[in-house]
Amino acid sequence: MSYYDYKVAGPTPPPALTDKLRLYHVDMNPYGHRVLLILEAKKAKYEVYRLDPLNLPTWFKAKNPRLKIPVLEIPTEHGDKYLFESVVICDYLDEKYAANPLHSRDPYVKAQDRLLIERFNELIKGSLECFDTNFAFGSEQIIQTLDIFERELAVRGTYYFGGDRPGMLDYMIWPWVERLYLLRCVNERKFDEKRTIFPNFADWGDQMQLDRVVKKHANSPAEYFEYYKNARTHTMGYYL
Amino acid sequence: MSYYDYKVAGPTPPPALTDKLRLYHVDMNPYGHRVLLILEAKKAKYEVYRLDPLNLPTWFKAKNPRLKIPVLEIPTEHGDKYLFESVVICDYLDEKYAANPLHSRDPYVKAQDRLLIERFNELIKGSLECFDTNFAFGSEQIIQTLDIFERELAVRGTYYFGGDRPGMLDYMIWPWVERLYLLRCVNERKFDEKRTIFPNFADWGDQMQLDRVVKKHANSPAEYFEYYKNARTHTMGYYL
Repeated sequence: MSYYDYKVAGPTPPPALTDKLRLYHVDMNPYGHRVLLILEAKKAKYEVYRLDPLNLPTWFKAKNPRLKIPVLEIPTEHGDKYLFESVVICDYLDEKYAANPLHSRDPYVKAQDRLLIERFNELIKGSLECFDTNFAFGSEQIIQTLDIFERELAVRGTYYFGGDRPGMLDYMIWPWVERLYLLRCVNERKFDEKRTIFPNFADWGDQMQLDRVVKKHANSPAEYFEYYKNARTHTMGYYL
Repeated sequence: MSYYDYKVAGPTPPPALTDKLRLYHVDMNPYGHRVLLILEAKKAKYEVYRLDPLNLPTWFKAKNPRLKIPVLEIPTEHGDKYLFESVVICDYLDEKYAANPLHSRDPYVKAQDRLLIERFNELIKGSLECFDTNFAFGSEQIIQTLDIFERELAVRGTYYFGGDRPGMLDYMIWPWVERLYLLRCVNERKFDEKRTIFPNFADWGDQMQLDRVVKKHANSPAEYFEYYKNARTHTMGYYL
């Protein structure tokens, strides 16, 4: 089970920021997972406030009327501010903290990576449909997307999309790939067959699971399987 | 009428790039307009190939199977490559060419600007509906978005979103604002009333129209009115 200290966002707002960034996160939410990975990769100091999506505090809704999640609260010249959208938050962190740059310094490669992050939304949609239909449908979108990323790894000829270590693209897609392993709980043989179709991507997944940053916020396939089996019967919107 | 040299994308592909970038553009397309503004703002050397959206050349479709427009063709280590998505293309140009930086150097302001560019999509949707229904509907989305940008200018206390000169956010939203002036041809009184509701934004629009970059690629309200009156009866998809 992933481990991080967290506080529960209760009826009164948290104090002003001191020396830490503050992430408002719904447990198991993959977009928040993205931000957790980048906070960790950048070795930022942060604290996590866990939100109950069915019971968002009034003070949180007042500062976030569009009810976006995750939110990163950061210090600025004009006081503590909320920042939205996982990709924007993660790019902000990469620019703000010089340590361990995650984007390529080549603007063309960076642009390509941004397009691939957007392209990956097809797999997110496929996963949503798959998990939401008792793991029956949506696999076509997943396979088509994996095919693109498989070929991209072959072209790049590197272990990671980021080169010899994970970069922004690796971490931006990882939360949904980590969840895909739950399909092994559904049908082990079918899942393992995919390794031969996507050998580079399968190796990439193996490597990613050994990454310090990934390990810090990882859940097991069984944990995800248990979660998504039940989550399907819950109210949606924050779950994938 | 906006003026730029252009070539027509014909049945045979253009030669390899030499000293210029190459934009593939559908005339009057606002996303391509974004790229034209940034090419100009960065003083890049470029040529424009005009595409007929109803008759895209085979070689173009082969290199761009998702039929995305606009496309910027750029030189890379691995030969000439196509780059897609107006926002990604424009950020690429800003990073690649050091002259006249268009994004804020403050990562928080840059992140805010990116969110506002995304937020502006509501106005794009509103305009699409408005222009597509004989200028009758969609104005609610337009008004709500203008309200956000009006307040943002007030908070920033500057002429432009970018400060004392237009920046990335200014140029990213400009193509649709320039087109909105056509509504003055529909109902002059109603249009002019809006000036008092959005005084900062109205002044911003006046300033923008005087900008060297904007002027280079500007069309008049009458030209847009004429175009969109007719475009509504055409095949859509590339027109707003």
